[in-house]
Amino acid sequence: MVHTPHGSFDTPAFMPVGTKASVKGLLPELVKRTGSQIILGNTYHLMLRPGSDVVAHFGGLHRFMRWDGPILTDSGGYQVFSMSDINRITDDGVVFKSIIDGSTVDLTPERSMQVQNELGADIIMAFDDCPPSAAGEDAGGAHAARLDLAMERTIRWLQRCAASHARPGEQALFGIVQGGTDLDRRRRSVEQVCGIDLPGYAIGGVAVGEGTEEIRRIVEHTAPLLPAERPRYLMGVGYEWDIIMAVRAGVDMFDCVLPTRNGRNANAFTRRGPVRLRNAVHARDKSLIEAGCDCPACGAGFSRGYLRHLFLAEEMLGPILVSLHNIAHFQRLMADARQAVVDDDWARLTADWPVLGGADVAVADDA
Amino acid sequence: MVHTPHGSFDTPAFMPVGTKASVKGLLPELVKRTGSQIILGNTYHLMLRPGSDVVAHFGGLHRFMRWDGPILTDSGGYQVFSMSDINRITDDGVVFKSIIDGSTVDLTPERSMQVQNELGADIIMAFDDCPPSAAGEDAGGAHAARLDLAMERTIRWLQRCAASHARPGEQALFGIVQGGTDLDRRRRSVEQVCGIDLPGYAIGGVAVGEGTEEIRRIVEHTAPLLPAERPRYLMGVGYEWDIIMAVRAGVDMFDCVLPTRNGRNANAFTRRGPVRLRNAVHARDKSLIEAGCDCPACGAGFSRGYLRHLFLAEEMLGPILVSLHNIAHFQRLMADARQAVVDDDWARLTADWPVLGGADVAVADDA
Repeated sequence: MVHTPHGSFDTPAFMPVGTKASVKGLLPELVKRTGSQIILGNTYHLMLRPGSDVVAHFGGLHRFMRWDGPILTDSGGYQVFSMSDINRITDDGVVFKSIIDGSTVDLTPERSMQVQNELGADIIMAFDDCPPSAAGEDAGGAHAARLDLAMERTIRWLQRCAASHARPGEQALFGIVQGGTDLDRRRRSVEQVCGIDLPGYAIGGVAVGEGTEEIRRIVEHTAPLLPAERPRYLMGVGYEWDIIMAVRAGVDMFDCVLPTRNGRNANAFTRRGPVRLRNAVHARDKSLIEAGCDCPACGAGFSRGYLRHLFLAEEMLGPILVSLHNIAHFQRLMADARQAVVDDDWARLTADWPVLGGADVAVADDA
Repeated sequence: MVHTPHGSFDTPAFMPVGTKASVKGLLPELVKRTGSQIILGNTYHLMLRPGSDVVAHFGGLHRFMRWDGPILTDSGGYQVFSMSDINRITDDGVVFKSIIDGSTVDLTPERSMQVQNELGADIIMAFDDCPPSAAGEDAGGAHAARLDLAMERTIRWLQRCAASHARPGEQALFGIVQGGTDLDRRRRSVEQVCGIDLPGYAIGGVAVGEGTEEIRRIVEHTAPLLPAERPRYLMGVGYEWDIIMAVRAGVDMFDCVLPTRNGRNANAFTRRGPVRLRNAVHARDKSLIEAGCDCPACGAGFSRGYLRHLFLAEEMLGPILVSLHNIAHFQRLMADARQAVVDDDWARLTADWPVLGGADVAVADDA
């Protein structure tokens, strides 16, 4: 369990993503009813709109979006590097064009800290240099040089983040380990990042295109190198089998857009694998997404046939209901994983969750 | 109070519109929390998708959409005449092109009854001939002849509806008075329609483009002609001042898309008039949509500034929250109107609801 100024959360924890100060389509009271105890907000989006000064004016992100539990914000770095038209990267930071209005925006370690201090999340993330992963990574050369530079910068930027963090008593700053798919780089990154005393550490740069086996290789190597007495957070992962693999490797915290993004696309998660609710086979299907599920969708008795209708009719309620179900699915997985840790009984977890067989066996039961 | 197989509702009653088996974006439990006791579904949309046979397969509209309170469905006529590419109108019925797939669809009084019997609403509406209102209506001639034909057809079609209605013990069939803006035609239509013994009667063809004074003239003339011991339903009306005028003229039931449609467009209703939440003036506005409001949006403390952010960021939660507030606004107006009926104190209602001064005084407090 992790304690924050806005309450505690059980670990391993799954954080639904509330990118723009809203878990898409979901009232906070409904997010809570999925079993979620902590949510994530995106610094990149919030600094551009409405602006962290505006959020601060409202008393911070918790009060602004009416979520009174713990919140984590990322640093903005990942989105800058993955979404933006970048003008310049220097040792100082990144200059990019806003996706909102095309204006030029500077993001430096100090600025990321200032923005996150204003947003006021309970856990904030270090601003790091995250170069795009490249197929040619193993080929060495220019890309290897870029990765080495990123590692050096990341540690210098982390020092600047720690130095400029204005609210260390209220907001826990986590460092981020990078290093791509190279295990030696990962080890060196752990040594550097964990050399700075911080309340938690994250594994970044995973699930940016690699398959399940590659994710496993990185996580099973890296997670055990992190200090066990601090929360360990695997950023942006992932499918059920990835999460449980990581829990067994020692990871405490997860976030992923899968439950909400797939929910908006009519793809529901179940213990037996995904269900595509747009499929014609569901037109007269009276069954719930998942029998026995107590989420706000299944608990109220919404059938697969009704949900299919909502998606075909382009009714907002479809994305809402399946997002709720999907988040509840991941929260139930985490609850069972916590029990598996207590009991040290992973066979039972796998028996209860056939989907954990992995991508190969996770075929839709309506395929 | 009106009693139905799915419970009772207080009158005067306001019905939120759930066109396609969903009040847009709102879980039924949240609709209920706005104070709504009965909702409306649209036969036209539901017969085209998913089809009334599909809804019947799921046990009817209540079970399909998980709303266990009373439901009213319209006949499909209004949408056929206002939305469709009509191929042919005959004494038998209407042939039109589906907006879903362009296929040819027949809608007759018998077919409308069959569809509504399958949907299974507690109150169903007669299928009538509703020609478009015309600016040249007063000019007589061709349009007058069309209106007379519509009146004759409407009564013949009503007889066919009553004769073919298969579930009169479970579903109350309401007749619809037409007649446009001509008071004599309205009187004759009342005589014809109310000549058929039905559990309720509606005033149709109002609020299809006329102003408040014209609506008042029609309703204050027509409503008192309807039998007082049966529910009287004014279809598709309207703004707060229109509704209260009609309540005082004896109307018991209302439906309107205004709270949900305006809610989706960031226009909030308040006792003092509309508030446009996209306005820049709300960027740092910490106030609720309406102080003292206990709707799921205001009750949870969402500020105007946060709502503005949601709309600018195109987050679904904006339309959801403002729709909830707006429906609650109309339900509170109805609750106060019921009290005004009991107390026979309309001055107090007007004092409590400055917006009732009418369209002229209902300026946004943020204009």
